[in-house]
Amino acid sequence: MSTPSEQSAVTPTVTVIGLGPMGRSLAGAFLDAGVRTTVWNRTPGKDGDLVERGAIAAASPEKAVAASPLTVVCLVNYDASDAVLRRDAVAAALKGRTVVNLTADTPERARDTAEWASGHGVRYLDGAIMTPTTTIGTPEAVFIHSGPEALYREHRAALDVLGGTHTFLGEEIGRAAAYDVVLLDIFWTSMAGYAHALAVARAEGITARELAPFARGIGSILPAIIEQTAEEVDTGAFTEQGNPITSAVSSMTHVVHTSEAHGIDAGVMRAAEGMARRAIGLGHGADGFMRVAETLGRTA
Amino acid sequence: MSTPSEQSAVTPTVTVIGLGPMGRSLAGAFLDAGVRTTVWNRTPGKDGDLVERGAIAAASPEKAVAASPLTVVCLVNYDASDAVLRRDAVAAALKGRTVVNLTADTPERARDTAEWASGHGVRYLDGAIMTPTTTIGTPEAVFIHSGPEALYREHRAALDVLGGTHTFLGEEIGRAAAYDVVLLDIFWTSMAGYAHALAVARAEGITARELAPFARGIGSILPAIIEQTAEEVDTGAFTEQGNPITSAVSSMTHVVHTSEAHGIDAGVMRAAEGMARRAIGLGHGADGFMRVAETLGRTA
Ligand SMILES: NC(=O)c1ccc[n+]([C@@H]2O[C@H](COP(=O)([O-])OP(=O)(O)OC[C@H]3O[C@@H](n4cnc5c(N)ncnc54)[C@H](OP(=O)(O)O)[C@@H]3O)[C@@H](O)[C@H]2O)c1
Ligand SMILES: NC(=O)c1ccc[n+]([C@@H]2O[C@H](COP(=O)([O-])OP(=O)(O)OC[C@H]3O[C@@H](n4cnc5c(N)ncnc54)[C@H](OP(=O)(O)O)[C@@H]3O)[C@@H](O)[C@H]2O)c1
Repeated sequence: MSTPSEQSAVTPTVTVIGLGPMGRSLAGAFLDAGVRTTVWNRTPGKDGDLVERGAIAAASPEKAVAASPLTVVCLVNYDASDAVLRRDAVAAALKGRTVVNLTADTPERARDTAEWASGHGVRYLDGAIMTPTTTIGTPEAVFIHSGPEALYREHRAALDVLGGTHTFLGEEIGRAAAYDVVLLDIFWTSMAGYAHALAVARAEGITARELAPFARGIGSILPAIIEQTAEEVDTGAFTEQGNPITSAVSSMTHVVHTSEAHGIDAGVMRAAEGMARRAIGLGHGADGFMRVAETLGRTA
Repeated sequence: MSTPSEQSAVTPTVTVIGLGPMGRSLAGAFLDAGVRTTVWNRTPGKDGDLVERGAIAAASPEKAVAASPLTVVCLVNYDASDAVLRRDAVAAALKGRTVVNLTADTPERARDTAEWASGHGVRYLDGAIMTPTTTIGTPEAVFIHSGPEALYREHRAALDVLGGTHTFLGEEIGRAAAYDVVLLDIFWTSMAGYAHALAVARAEGITARELAPFARGIGSILPAIIEQTAEEVDTGAFTEQGNPITSAVSSMTHVVHTSEAHGIDAGVMRAAEGMARRAIGLGHGADGFMRVAETLGRTA
């Protein structure tokens, strides 16, 4: 009998379900590596160039999953993933086979899908992609995975074809989705702040180009803050380092006033300010801003 | 007659009004450079160590400003700055002298103060400090300034004593405050997102330490995004680059659900999602997320 790593050294045939921008990039990376790749998408007509590059177009999702021991799913969310995987014919065809679901959704949905999979004899891994389509097949791609570790190791070689770094986060199936959601929280909140800032800048006669060097400067101080605060948040010791929450709230107020004086909605900053004011109300005005993480998490 | 740059080569005596964490750092940097430094703070007792280092403690704000041709003001906001500068005795003592106001507030308040200053024969520059107290006196400090350019040049040598880079943004007095507000918008929105993400992470059993390498990864893609989008936003061509607003909204929904399923307020992300949904409602669902900057700014 071969060990898991010997097994994974043989690149298996793969099925890709979902040919949105990301699914197409995944299928393309498999094809570039010479993997026998079967593809299916709900709306037909998205597989033309992939077929030209050697992909096999399946006529139905059950035929698609039956073609390979490993199916990679990449759809908009788990409503879509359920709509495809939980058809009787698909579930039957998947029996004994492996699904790696790279669709983004909540940890709850990943857990629910693992339960369904185990009830149907489907081997199940959950994962998430943390980088844009352009990174797939390059060293810049970032993938995270969770689920049965032996199953992950069995398919690791196939996943490696997609490039980048793959991190196994543990056997708890919801873990990859939890990291994904938390990282998307940081990303999309920051992007919302940046979009809003650009709207206010324009109202003040400042172009995005003029702002860019300073905005990059703000971005460049974030990694150090992430490092510093990790310790504080895990230990619950929120040092203020010359910048108490009360001072943050004063800055937030200036943003809200300037924005609204130009008729620009400041709902995001108003909500952020509310979070900070709640921490102050709970008696933490002299602490550093990251105290907010702790007060937000208090459910009692 | 000497040219402005010859004048500024002589480091003048300086007055610092406000001895909060930042005012104390500014005064400390002047003292370290051997500048004759007079200090005043509303609440007494904050000048002890500065006086030991050679600072002159003034008994009143009017005596403080009378001691130097240049007064640097650094208070919590312009309510505080008005409360100090707009006393009759202080205004009289400031006549013909220069104020560089490094207090953060809105562009509106800077404009209003410049008007007051011009009505009282006070020479006025506005500025903002974009980096923490620990950077003052080091190359990492970032200062921005606006107001009469000749006045800025006259005092540039004194400002250089504070270290770091000084950027003159133009004669429009509100410009430094406008940049400041816009950059603080990016910074505090991102920090709010990070604090919220850490609360959700903790609820999912993920520590800040475990998250840190991935969070830094998210932070490290922001500078490239800032570059790419500057062009889009200035020209109004919002390419989707494989990531349309509809896809962002899907991610945002996952964050809201996961957060609220743990009883954690998701008001910031709900507001961000609302911004994005409004752009979709206006017909821009297939555009890149930065279209939101343009729709937010539409006041008609
Ligand atoms: N694009 C990126 O840069 C990126 C980066 C990291 C992670 N991701 C994640 O990757 C996943 C896929 O993203 P994407 O960029 O490829 O585009 P997407 O718009 O998120 O997903 C499009 C895919 O979902 C399918 N779909 C939607 N509703 C469906 C349903 N009810 N039943 C069956 N299929 C359905 C679409 O099929 P039709 O063609 O039939 O509509 C298409 O295959 C998402 O979870 C996304 O968050 C994307
Ligand atoms: N700390 C930083 O890392 C940092 C970084 C960049 C920019 N800034 C900006 O620098 C400015 C000063 O910040 P800071 O950190 O020194 O602390 P701060 O808490 O923002 O300001 C404290 C100063 O404001 C004074 N003050 C408050 N209300 C007053 C009033 N009504 N009348 C007179 N004085 C009043 C305080 O005097 P009392 O001692 O009498 O209360 C103290 O001198 C702010 O605008 C801040 O945004 C700070």
